Amino acid sequence: MPTNYLLKSPMLNDTIIALATPQGVGAIAVIRLSGEEAIAVTDRFFQKADKNKTPLALQKTHTVHFGSIVATDGEIIDEVLVTLFVAPHSFTKENVVEISCHGSPFIVERIVRLFLEAGVRLAKPGEFTQRAFLNGRFDLAQAEAVADLIAADTDSARRSALHQMRGGFSKEIKKLREELINFASLIELELDFGEEDVEFADRDRLVHLVEQIMSFLERLMQSFSLGNVLKNGVPTVIAGKPNAGKSTLLNALLNEEKAIVSEIPGTTRDFIEDTLTIEGINFRFIDTAGLRQTDDRIEALGIARTREKMAQAALIIYLFDIAETSISEVEAAAKELQQMGKNYLLVGNKVDKVTSDLLHHPDIIRISAAQNIGLDELKAALLKAANARPVAVGETVVTNLRHYEALSKAHRALADVLTGLQSHVTADFVAIDIRHALRALGEITGEITTEDLLGNIFSKFCIGK
Amino acid sequence: MPTNYLLKSPMLNDTIIALATPQGVGAIAVIRLSGEEAIAVTDRFFQKADKNKTPLALQKTHTVHFGSIVATDGEIIDEVLVTLFVAPHSFTKENVVEISCHGSPFIVERIVRLFLEAGVRLAKPGEFTQRAFLNGRFDLAQAEAVADLIAADTDSARRSALHQMRGGFSKEIKKLREELINFASLIELELDFGEEDVEFADRDRLVHLVEQIMSFLERLMQSFSLGNVLKNGVPTVIAGKPNAGKSTLLNALLNEEKAIVSEIPGTTRDFIEDTLTIEGINFRFIDTAGLRQTDDRIEALGIARTREKMAQAALIIYLFDIAETSISEVEAAAKELQQMGKNYLLVGNKVDKVTSDLLHHPDIIRISAAQNIGLDELKAALLKAANARPVAVGETVVTNLRHYEALSKAHRALADVLTGLQSHVTADFVAIDIRHALRALGEITGEITTEDLLGNIFSKFCIGK
Repeated sequence: MPTNYLLKSPMLNDTIIALATPQGVGAIAVIRLSGEEAIAVTDRFFQKADKNKTPLALQKTHTVHFGSIVATDGEIIDEVLVTLFVAPHSFTKENVVEISCHGSPFIVERIVRLFLEAGVRLAKPGEFTQRAFLNGRFDLAQAEAVADLIAADTDSARRSALHQMRGGFSKEIKKLREELINFASLIELELDFGEEDVEFADRDRLVHLVEQIMSFLERLMQSFSLGNVLKNGVPTVIAGKPNAGKSTLLNALLNEEKAIVSEIPGTTRDFIEDTLTIEGINFRFIDTAGLRQTDDRIEALGIARTREKMAQAALIIYLFDIAETSISEVEAAAKELQQMGKNYLLVGNKVDKVTSDLLHHPDIIRISAAQNIGLDELKAALLKAANARPVAVGETVVTNLRHYEALSKAHRALADVLTGLQSHVTADFVAIDIRHALRALGEITGEITTEDLLGNIFSKFCIGK
Repeated sequence: MPTNYLLKSPMLNDTIIALATPQGVGAIAVIRLSGEEAIAVTDRFFQKADKNKTPLALQKTHTVHFGSIVATDGEIIDEVLVTLFVAPHSFTKENVVEISCHGSPFIVERIVRLFLEAGVRLAKPGEFTQRAFLNGRFDLAQAEAVADLIAADTDSARRSALHQMRGGFSKEIKKLREELINFASLIELELDFGEEDVEFADRDRLVHLVEQIMSFLERLMQSFSLGNVLKNGVPTVIAGKPNAGKSTLLNALLNEEKAIVSEIPGTTRDFIEDTLTIEGINFRFIDTAGLRQTDDRIEALGIARTREKMAQAALIIYLFDIAETSISEVEAAAKELQQMGKNYLLVGNKVDKVTSDLLHHPDIIRISAAQNIGLDELKAALLKAANARPVAVGETVVTNLRHYEALSKAHRALADVLTGLQSHVTADFVAIDIRHALRALGEITGEITTEDLLGNIFSKFCIGK
């Protein structure tokens, strides 16, 4: 039988604490504790405001209590709300306490310190989520999606992370594994019969199944190019001669979007700076500020610094003044971009200033950045050129390099299974390759895991998650 | 009778929403709603995870519910915890809902938007606290302390803000007002008797009371110099010749402190940068980085730029190499600092390199920044020079300029009362001055207030508080 063993770290029973909300000053901050002693230790520092002096340890789960955090010397540190989640009814399945205090980093530090002095340990990055995983709240792919969800800055990224966190991706992987496990069992049974020439597993059906699974894996692997774009955006450069209107174009594209989000002060301004989001895909303009400042000194594609920027880009918008550029000049630029192996768009600007229909080349997108003409067409072309599209609700998209690599590993192992079956190798060889595939798939959901792997995954989380 | 009238803005019944936690990425973010419809409107977007489908509107106060926020088109936006505070058992005394979602600014925006589209209004700065004040949760001085508490970055500032928020300061003001009101009543009663020459209010006792109150007001007003230092810190400059050891001293002072706080990653690092906290008082080193960079170009007190920096300082540390500086040089610097009207300390550095006991001047603090000699003495001298000390638990310290001004106004009005009584003016004049004093005191706690005043106070709060 295939061994479906768990290499998990020993269950940690100590109680951990961390700030769960972003750092900085705000109306409130939330400090989170998890572990067997979480509620008992909070009782030592919490004084309920009303007459009901029942200790927190005797209160119900999912209740909120108003009172004060009182230091060991009796001084009140802050007035707080304490929320209880009694095991197993919590994120980590352990006792969890959330302390909502005034949003001063200083007060947060005072409170955290108080608990540290009482023997509570500062949580490591991702440790709350790691505990949730180890305690069976969800599998590894779901746990990883928590970090993706927090980092999500477009609707497509949020949608795909949420789908994964809610188990959508895991379900598909588990289904594949189960089918493989069935066949693996039969094959391994044949091994028990040793020299006897029996075949419990129908080879034709096995070939068919493996082919099916491989084509499914291929689809998932293909989705990674979209997933990668979702997660990391499309590095884009606007190149062109001075006065082609590069900054006007960038501002026209960005301002429209900013106007929408600026209704809600402070929530999104920072991260859209120089990132244009089209249907949930982030087009990140590489150092365009720098390019803008040196507009007067650089020649279109001619200078090392611009070339360097372009080398980092996945997509280049070659912008030119449609009234002052000859078709041969545009074609020369296009040729150069092709030689660089770059994905590019040829965009003729200032179309409003041209009366004749010169340069009606099919590859040229005609816009006027100043007059807002053709921008929708340009956006559609950007999406198409980046090979990107919005993610549908409930669609599985592989966004995680680790998952992509595990899928590739499983795919290679299954290719070996197929080769083996076709060349009629003995059952034991087939069994080994199937086990490799199973192991690779199990790594995604964490059925197969190691301390190193977990450490690697969760150390990338922020503290407090 | 003295009119104790309330000039309050009309009660606002609409429902408001804002992010309550600091902006940025974190494990969780908390969005807060307040208003009559807060719970009902959340019910429209919240889908409880378990089988208990009882609407939030029928759930108990101070309970937490796990589920999803679902957009109008049925798409799940995020998995969240919803906490209910049913009126009047909330901070604002209105229905309050806290939505704890994943800490992504993008998700926060999506959720806030959903509620805005449903007719909920984005909260103005301080509007939650303003509602708490208008609904009688606490008085104005207490409401103002909420902002101070959030901004507190030392234990003394936190302690004094918490004392004020919990009503300590207000209680003292109210006691003064009541005593004055008693006398005012008697005086105004005399007015009712018009021409008859009656005196219900014992003039000697009134003089005594007014003197008592004035001396109490003086004590509060004096505490403002400490309060101001608590709230704003002590702008400090380290001046001196190149190689006096300015950056070594600053690092020696700062590093010690940083070592303590760095146990708790990320909670306080930002705001202690170049701020030295001694017993809860912040000494803020003005642009010392700049001074450090130009060390090689500036002469001790000789350059305009340094003088400019020193003009902003409340305290100047004049640092010199004790082995290489003559007493006349130090005295010249001291004289110059005196002429500038500056509070200063003369600090001789590198005392470890001197064998003879030169420069044993009583005004010179002898240290070695490199060897950590004399730093405690220097810190004590800094505290003393800044006229600062830690605030005791339960001590009232006036930290708010508005309060200081109201206290001064009350003090001036009482001085007029005293003058009037001593020159035997008629009761109506005395009554007018007492009313002025009462009004000034009432402005502190918000018993007397105007829309302008409230607007001015709460607009300085952050959104979400």
